[in-house]
Amino acid sequence: MSAPPDAVVAGEPIGVAVIGAGYWGPNLVRNFQASDAFRLRWLCDLDVSRAQRVLGHYSTVQATADLAAVLADEAVRAVAIATPAGTHLEVALAALRAGKHVLVEKPLAATYEEGLQLVEEADRRGLTLMCDHTYCYTPAVIRIRELLRSGELGELQYLDAVRINLGLVQRDIDVIWDLAPHDLSILDFVLPEGVKAVAVAAHGADPIGAGRSCIGYLTLKLSSGAIAHVHVNWLSPIKVRTTIIGGSKRTLVWDDLNPTQRIAIFDRGVDVATPGELGAEERREMLISYRSGDMVAPALSEREALRTMVEEFASSIHTGRPPLTDGRAGLRVLDILNATKVSLANGGTFVPLEGAA
Amino acid sequence: MSAPPDAVVAGEPIGVAVIGAGYWGPNLVRNFQASDAFRLRWLCDLDVSRAQRVLGHYSTVQATADLAAVLADEAVRAVAIATPAGTHLEVALAALRAGKHVLVEKPLAATYEEGLQLVEEADRRGLTLMCDHTYCYTPAVIRIRELLRSGELGELQYLDAVRINLGLVQRDIDVIWDLAPHDLSILDFVLPEGVKAVAVAAHGADPIGAGRSCIGYLTLKLSSGAIAHVHVNWLSPIKVRTTIIGGSKRTLVWDDLNPTQRIAIFDRGVDVATPGELGAEERREMLISYRSGDMVAPALSEREALRTMVEEFASSIHTGRPPLTDGRAGLRVLDILNATKVSLANGGTFVPLEGAA
Amino acid sequence: MSAPPDAVVAGEPIGVAVIGAGYWGPNLVRNFQASDAFRLRWLCDLDVSRAQRVLGHYSTVQATADLAAVLADEAVRAVAIATPAGTHLEVALAALRAGKHVLVEKPLAATYEEGLQLVEEADRRGLTLMCDHTYCYTPAVIRIRELLRSGELGELQYLDAVRINLGLVQRDIDVIWDLAPHDLSILDFVLPEGVKAVAVAAHGADPIGAGRSCIGYLTLKLSSGAIAHVHVNWLSPIKVRTTIIGGSKRTLVWDDLNPTQRIAIFDRGVDVATPGELGAEERREMLISYRSGDMVAPALSEREALRTMVEEFASSIHTGRPPLTDGRAGLRVLDILNATKVSLANGGTFVPLEGAA
Amino acid sequence: MSAPPDAVVAGEPIGVAVIGAGYWGPNLVRNFQASDAFRLRWLCDLDVSRAQRVLGHYSTVQATADLAAVLADEAVRAVAIATPAGTHLEVALAALRAGKHVLVEKPLAATYEEGLQLVEEADRRGLTLMCDHTYCYTPAVIRIRELLRSGELGELQYLDAVRINLGLVQRDIDVIWDLAPHDLSILDFVLPEGVKAVAVAAHGADPIGAGRSCIGYLTLKLSSGAIAHVHVNWLSPIKVRTTIIGGSKRTLVWDDLNPTQRIAIFDRGVDVATPGELGAEERREMLISYRSGDMVAPALSEREALRTMVEEFASSIHTGRPPLTDGRAGLRVLDILNATKVSLANGGTFVPLEGAA
Repeated sequence: MSAPPDAVVAGEPIGVAVIGAGYWGPNLVRNFQASDAFRLRWLCDLDVSRAQRVLGHYSTVQATADLAAVLADEAVRAVAIATPAGTHLEVALAALRAGKHVLVEKPLAATYEEGLQLVEEADRRGLTLMCDHTYCYTPAVIRIRELLRSGELGELQYLDAVRINLGLVQRDIDVIWDLAPHDLSILDFVLPEGVKAVAVAAHGADPIGAGRSCIGYLTLKLSSGAIAHVHVNWLSPIKVRTTIIGGSKRTLVWDDLNPTQRIAIFDRGVDVATPGELGAEERREMLISYRSGDMVAPALSEREALRTMVEEFASSIHTGRPPLTDGRAGLRVLDILNATKVSLANGGTFVPLEGAA
Repeated sequence: MSAPPDAVVAGEPIGVAVIGAGYWGPNLVRNFQASDAFRLRWLCDLDVSRAQRVLGHYSTVQATADLAAVLADEAVRAVAIATPAGTHLEVALAALRAGKHVLVEKPLAATYEEGLQLVEEADRRGLTLMCDHTYCYTPAVIRIRELLRSGELGELQYLDAVRINLGLVQRDIDVIWDLAPHDLSILDFVLPEGVKAVAVAAHGADPIGAGRSCIGYLTLKLSSGAIAHVHVNWLSPIKVRTTIIGGSKRTLVWDDLNPTQRIAIFDRGVDVATPGELGAEERREMLISYRSGDMVAPALSEREALRTMVEEFASSIHTGRPPLTDGRAGLRVLDILNATKVSLANGGTFVPLEGAA
Repeated sequence: MSAPPDAVVAGEPIGVAVIGAGYWGPNLVRNFQASDAFRLRWLCDLDVSRAQRVLGHYSTVQATADLAAVLADEAVRAVAIATPAGTHLEVALAALRAGKHVLVEKPLAATYEEGLQLVEEADRRGLTLMCDHTYCYTPAVIRIRELLRSGELGELQYLDAVRINLGLVQRDIDVIWDLAPHDLSILDFVLPEGVKAVAVAAHGADPIGAGRSCIGYLTLKLSSGAIAHVHVNWLSPIKVRTTIIGGSKRTLVWDDLNPTQRIAIFDRGVDVATPGELGAEERREMLISYRSGDMVAPALSEREALRTMVEEFASSIHTGRPPLTDGRAGLRVLDILNATKVSLANGGTFVPLEGAA
Repeated sequence: MSAPPDAVVAGEPIGVAVIGAGYWGPNLVRNFQASDAFRLRWLCDLDVSRAQRVLGHYSTVQATADLAAVLADEAVRAVAIATPAGTHLEVALAALRAGKHVLVEKPLAATYEEGLQLVEEADRRGLTLMCDHTYCYTPAVIRIRELLRSGELGELQYLDAVRINLGLVQRDIDVIWDLAPHDLSILDFVLPEGVKAVAVAAHGADPIGAGRSCIGYLTLKLSSGAIAHVHVNWLSPIKVRTTIIGGSKRTLVWDDLNPTQRIAIFDRGVDVATPGELGAEERREMLISYRSGDMVAPALSEREALRTMVEEFASSIHTGRPPLTDGRAGLRVLDILNATKVSLANGGTFVPLEGAA
């Protein structure tokens, strides 16, 4: 990607506006304010009093309900969008057309096709389009990516993610669209180069009569032959956020709710040696062995993920290189989400993915 | 069921023999020895030295490799079988034909058809046929059954079971046949009367090249509309044995590895009230509410499950009533296991169940 | 306490200044800004650039290094002091003399005598003097106070508090002065009326040669005959914040690091019935019995303690009643801290307390 | 120690008798039966029916109430004593005088003086006198000993042990004599050579009116300047068995109730570098630094401690070398227990130890 036409001069803070003062917007406001790379100018919400409440009594940032005014502000070089997914296309497209770099809360858009429009528009204009896959910027996930890509865990054999909690039953989307993007974006982020998801099967359940799935199970086939499984659930009285990543050398357990031991790397597993000239059955009996080694819990920083995300946005704007979680990453997640819809409608059969990107 | 022809006189110990001195047999030996209801006479194994090793230097119990001699011993009124599943049909049939009451380790037999033969043979002869679904006799599962059947949890909405560990890769069966019988027998045991599993879908993976699935995911549809999901895994470096049982009133979490808090009952969840005359969308918005109440961890005894199981076997023999986990319960589990095979072969589609029993 | 001369009109925000922009000050800044009861006007620090950094680029609050100017501001009715303990006397006295209500970070002062001066000065002037014993305003501690004072736990038998972590080795105070005030202020807060600490014994250790105790153990005798023990430690690689509160009816475990189960109330314990006319030894044997009942983990709100503390400060200013953690409570904590010094110097003997207040 | 007169020929099982069929005896019975190094001949208890119940219906071991007959049996070369502590002197002395090697349950005897008699008697006769400090033979404690003695943890700085539970209130001894011997024997076992306990201070409480301490806190000074603290408690509704061992290089946490991670070694702590020519205060400020490194949980076997203990007893008998937990180790524990009595009577002052052995 060549340098964008309106390349920002390194060192000067980038004028930024946050659109949407609901659940996620305040986190963006706080992190843009804390970053020397940005200067927050606007918080925009259709309900301007909500924007004012978020800013509080002591802020010099301007609250507004007028998106056009924000986009017309030349000092605004970047826009962060935290509005409902159904509005992402319209708002992001307007921002891109106004020449702004754009950060979009997950999911990138309401459909794959809409997401594709955004990616193509940003490409055409040489602007940064970034998806706020926040978890990818946690110290834990960054470390997992390193461990998988460096080969320290060996080849990925399986990934099992559980993300359950007593969650707000959303009005517009089911639990899969609400929670699975976290796990799917993490999967996309940590997979070794060359490996990608190729098909997905989904089961859902709505046992409370909410009108949409409140429990979801996804099974993904990866191009390497490995399997990934995601369990999302709005109805669980206990909160679990645990992912097991089985590698041929080591297996990693990420427990995001255990602050003192988020990542545990086990030198424990089953080995199957490559046999010589024995028969198939004999080979198996003889060549399976078990490792029962130590566990290492690496020290991780407690850096806030959003802070790192915001810096990556700045860095992408300054250098013109795509951010780690660019629009295409958001598109790959949408691809899987769309396929789960088809699978749910078909009784849980595997649905092949576009293989976008 | 009428009283068996060779009805045992209550009060006198029942002569018993254990067949199989491998992994499970020693547990049966220990528990039959500790029970006043039984008198253990034989431990039988094709490898008689293995049987002798299990008995040790100090035992008056006889070791033998001669099953026929055991079955010919008139003092033996009951036989407990802990041999590989593939031999259950032959050994149990011989025992039933010799007029012995029979306890069989799970799974009841290698196939549904073989299991059916055993059930019918026992019926014809008026003998007790019991399946050693050990977990059903733990204080925790007994309590769960009471809570579900009494309505204290409300209607069952979902059940999610995880049973993963670094387990021995079996030579003859995959992880689903090895571990899922535990969860399926528990499900069968705790379901309220009138509710049963009607279909199952399964995904499996063999990422280490073991020749059979080492990871399995089952999704079951219940006749009530509820969903059950089972995750079994031989490759996990961490051991998890947690089942979440969502009810319309309360949700229960059973963590079998937490001895001080095996069962936690949460008054926490999502309610959907029945609406009056509002439109569908309004109803949903207005009528979903959240409970965030206390959690109660009931005191449970630490009684060994096998001890209770052995007593249930004695009681069934004495009274002639079917044991809580009778042959038909074993058959229902086999039905589901067979259906998972079909589902695995068909790419994970739902396979209807016989609805056995 | 009569209404203070400069009684604040309810409803109007109280002008407030925060003194000290170090570790704790920013938390006060954030919470005063979030409270409608206050209007934050100044953040004062000898290092004005530090104050500016805390406020950030977007704040309308004024940073200053000039305490006199702050105290001269008539719109400032209250002052919150978060400077090192050694400066509390001077700053708080100046504020009281300027007619300001005062909130002081724990410990109230560097010595018991200094604390007493502050209490007497505030009394004389009819001003609120409040000690920021933050933990007392957590939902958990508020609930513990209710449970102990209402008699639901029965009579207090023992309290065992552990507060250990890899903590910053302070330059001016030892681990007892750094961490134990938390536990001592909680103890003071939850004790049933009429019960108070009467003596303390202390052991300390400085195994790293830091020049002051890095490990401390306090044993307190209460007027009711109960015992309290506090373990504080800067050198522990694991963080533990667990307090066990044994009552004659129930025992409570507060684990502040378990967000989903901070409080667990156990109906489990040892009962000793009152005997009739048996001999002493027989009585004991016959009359000790064990309860092994359920555990209840009550639902608690996740309200931030500082928010509640700030409201209590406002309420005390508005009504003229002493705050829940007033200067006298701070003084009782100082009394114990002073006595630990004596006990440490005397090899761990019990030192009687003033019984202040 | 020279070879005992009745040296046992290696390879032939050692005839052994267990005295006492109460709480601990059955464990010894089971482990002697499982060991090829021993042949169990007798289980002796004043209440012979209790001994018979322990042996069950199937055992070839003889039950008896006649200690003299056991000691007269020439095939009995060793005796294991699991009777109340008050009887240890009499029973063990009789056994030694009959030429038997002796294993004694902890504590070695009811008083230091009685223990000394046993040690001297065994010495005179060249017989093995071993104290069953079971915990010292757990894989965890063996590893801790290696780590401390090899210097891998650096110099021992502090040890903090918590052993609390809802325990049986004993009739004859207080909680310190009941539970602390475990921790004191472990401390004795793992201390680097040349380091020993030199003084102990104790606090106790009997809040239920049991007639003896139900809660105890011990503080020990070690010859190296390090500190050890032990908290024992019969009244806690939760079970905790955690020991923190702070070293100058690494700190170890042993959680005996966490089977999957009993030992965690933290490369996390506080370093104080040796200064050059700075002033005392400057040195401290400049030279304290914090390590925040990885944690390693070494793989440990799950071998039963009693099995290893029984083997050590056999090995000592065969070779004539003192066992790892010999009578002198038992004596050092008694020394500390006796000193706690004095300290409790004196209000918690430090009491110097004999420095036995």
